[in-house]
Amino acid sequence: MSIITIEKKILEKNEDLAKLNREIFHQKNILTLDLLSSPGSGKTTLLEKTLEILKGKIHPAVIEGDVQTDHDAQRIAEHQIPVVQIITRGGCHLDARLIQDALNKLPLDEIQLLFIENVGNLVCPAEFDLGETEKVVILSATEGDDKPLKYPLAFHKATTCILNKTDLLPYVEFSVDTFRKNALKINPALTLFECSAKTGDGIEAWTDWLTHKIKNG
Amino acid sequence: MSIITIEKKILEKNEDLAKLNREIFHQKNILTLDLLSSPGSGKTTLLEKTLEILKGKIHPAVIEGDVQTDHDAQRIAEHQIPVVQIITRGGCHLDARLIQDALNKLPLDEIQLLFIENVGNLVCPAEFDLGETEKVVILSATEGDDKPLKYPLAFHKATTCILNKTDLLPYVEFSVDTFRKNALKINPALTLFECSAKTGDGIEAWTDWLTHKIKNG
Repeated sequence: MSIITIEKKILEKNEDLAKLNREIFHQKNILTLDLLSSPGSGKTTLLEKTLEILKGKIHPAVIEGDVQTDHDAQRIAEHQIPVVQIITRGGCHLDARLIQDALNKLPLDEIQLLFIENVGNLVCPAEFDLGETEKVVILSATEGDDKPLKYPLAFHKATTCILNKTDLLPYVEFSVDTFRKNALKINPALTLFECSAKTGDGIEAWTDWLTHKIKNG
Repeated sequence: MSIITIEKKILEKNEDLAKLNREIFHQKNILTLDLLSSPGSGKTTLLEKTLEILKGKIHPAVIEGDVQTDHDAQRIAEHQIPVVQIITRGGCHLDARLIQDALNKLPLDEIQLLFIENVGNLVCPAEFDLGETEKVVILSATEGDDKPLKYPLAFHKATTCILNKTDLLPYVEFSVDTFRKNALKINPALTLFECSAKTGDGIEAWTDWLTHKIKNG
């Protein structure tokens, strides 16, 4: 029983810190998106393609969360935007305290759009509010069309879902219709995008949506 | 600081229960493999193909771990072998207590080989000893050849690693050589297999290895 009590306290403290982060994002007018997915869903490639398209139009920044290595932050840094790497050293999710620390290292007055690339894990990160404006869940077409039913919390907490790696659809057993039905069964309000970060196909619907959200507050 | 204390207690208790499970597996002479991977790596398809090949030669059973749904256990049950589904309802890993409960529902005297399909999560399940004989980590070729470096604990704890979905190698940027180097950098003692559970290519090296281990104790 004591375990449940402690668990609750951690989450309560996280909620308080998330609230502080959310106030900062609101004051500075920063759209903050917490990106959730399994390992290898193509989050970093999707981010890189997104940054290329938004270059010169929007001022973005990235917080990279990884269990180990700073490979992803190195890739993002090549796009000459502010980036902070959080290495969790085994930790399975980011929390609001880690984001608070990262915010101290970012030029918040110059940023309109902040991407938080969470640890590759479709389970735990969904439980933690970071203070983000919205959570975005990314699934690759190779993972299977049943995943919204098997990992419902991430799809429930997200407002937006991106199906990535659509270039691989001809080679895998994945029904986009079934996926859509499963995702909307868990969360009927989900905004869905389908794209291939590798080929660029379908990416502009996503970047147009981002630009529209930023311009319209 | 209290968080760390509690965390330690949970793990200590888990170690005790894992020890009890391990004694049962030893007494009953059951080879127990804890299968770790990201969501959608093809664990269940790999299991199904493995069960087809071992049919009539080995007496297997399966414990299925899922955050939600019993879809995987239903698939396995069609192979007419004993199967127990554990639904964690949000929990990100299996633990020794859950396995203890599942063992009470299995005909242990008739089993030579027990597969535990852990929750799809490349981070948390690696931290928990279930009493298994060995951990096996499965990575799909679509996840990227850098994953052993980014999620080192699973590759460190496993004795065996299976690269799955090799049929997709022509369509993704994945160097098998780089993957091998990265995996062996984390764990030089890893036994590596490469296969496609979908086409069956390479599966027999894995099932031969299993059969050999069972026959030779």
